[in-house]
Amino acid sequence: MKIDVIISADDIKEAKIQGKSVVVIDVLRATSVIVTAISNGSREVIPVVDVDAAREIAKKDRNMYLLGGERRALKIDGFDFSNSPLEYKASIVKGKTVVMTTTNGTKAIKGSTAAKNIIIGAMINATAVSQRIEELGNDVVIVNAGTYGQFSIDDFLCTGYIISKLKENKKPNLELTDIATTALYVYEQNQDITSFIKYANHYNVIKDLGLYEDLKYCCSKDIVDIVPEYRNGIIK
Amino acid sequence: MKIDVIISADDIKEAKIQGKSVVVIDVLRATSVIVTAISNGSREVIPVVDVDAAREIAKKDRNMYLLGGERRALKIDGFDFSNSPLEYKASIVKGKTVVMTTTNGTKAIKGSTAAKNIIIGAMINATAVSQRIEELGNDVVIVNAGTYGQFSIDDFLCTGYIISKLKENKKPNLELTDIATTALYVYEQNQDITSFIKYANHYNVIKDLGLYEDLKYCCSKDIVDIVPEYRNGIIK
Repeated sequence: MKIDVIISADDIKEAKIQGKSVVVIDVLRATSVIVTAISNGSREVIPVVDVDAAREIAKKDRNMYLLGGERRALKIDGFDFSNSPLEYKASIVKGKTVVMTTTNGTKAIKGSTAAKNIIIGAMINATAVSQRIEELGNDVVIVNAGTYGQFSIDDFLCTGYIISKLKENKKPNLELTDIATTALYVYEQNQDITSFIKYANHYNVIKDLGLYEDLKYCCSKDIVDIVPEYRNGIIK
Repeated sequence: MKIDVIISADDIKEAKIQGKSVVVIDVLRATSVIVTAISNGSREVIPVVDVDAAREIAKKDRNMYLLGGERRALKIDGFDFSNSPLEYKASIVKGKTVVMTTTNGTKAIKGSTAAKNIIIGAMINATAVSQRIEELGNDVVIVNAGTYGQFSIDDFLCTGYIISKLKENKKPNLELTDIATTALYVYEQNQDITSFIKYANHYNVIKDLGLYEDLKYCCSKDIVDIVPEYRNGIIK
């Protein structure tokens, strides 16, 4: 099983992901939100790139559709949720569809449609993701959403953690590209996550907004054991 | 001074390099060859992407023009040199023009022409490169040639070494992107180079070809103090 990594949503190339299992990661915070929403009983999540497109879908039935996401890390006017996973409580999302638009994560998911499978990964469900990868048995490309077209340390650490789990299970014969080897290395040197994630520019943007609980939650390993997948425009 | 990194020749985006100082790095082995050739008295190096184009230039005067480069890491039929820096001895290259075509390095140089300056960097001239960067004073993008469109650990380690030199001098107020921070980190943990470069797939390709002396030479820090620059199709 070959493991490769793409370092930002802007660097996705169709030829690299075709026929493979893609894991989309946006630890801070889109995929952490999606995993949380589905885990808390949301019927499905519809990722859309555009704010107006999100509003258009939701206005069909404002009781069934909830609107979530961010621009510049902040809540969008008229939306039900910001991009904080802690807002997506079971009491609010259960049985509802969440229409989501975020700057990086949504773009990474929509950009990966040439893949065979699209798995939604985060630190909070990393071990479950590694198990799903093994089940599927295809070569894997871990797509880091990154931040505004840039590599992001938080996503890279999560990538390394998932690879370490695949290595630990030793079931597949892993063949790592150099970038996958480097992600594994950086994670193995920083298994507590915080010792290295503190250097991530985007981590500090969110810290400066005072969202400490979000950071703590998004960096928690394996508190969720479900693995959402994207198919035909819908995540469930 | 902002420092960013592009991880392979295939990932160069004009908007990221415009108006900046670009350092092109292909440790194994194109930029190690170029630095060596110029240091050994070659008049200039002309990098070309295509084998036939290289032959076309050289046939104007086979006494003045020497042909160097590789395909699949091996010497090209009818060429004077392979891509081994050890072949570019002063006794052969002095006063001559080397026409070069390599798979990754040449592509990275030719893809960087939107930059303000294009500096040729390798492990063997890294400290001199860091000094030239400071002299120029522009924001910097370190372009890793990579290997066949992939991130390559050898180039990344050299990138980290150059950033560590910039940091050490502390003259500029360095602002690192997450990928630059990660390159610096990986280098700082592996300052001997060999402890991590051994995981590089391309390093092992060259090792399997038995080119141990090439590897040793290309991984030697700062044995050359010149900094070739590319301008209008020519490196000198």
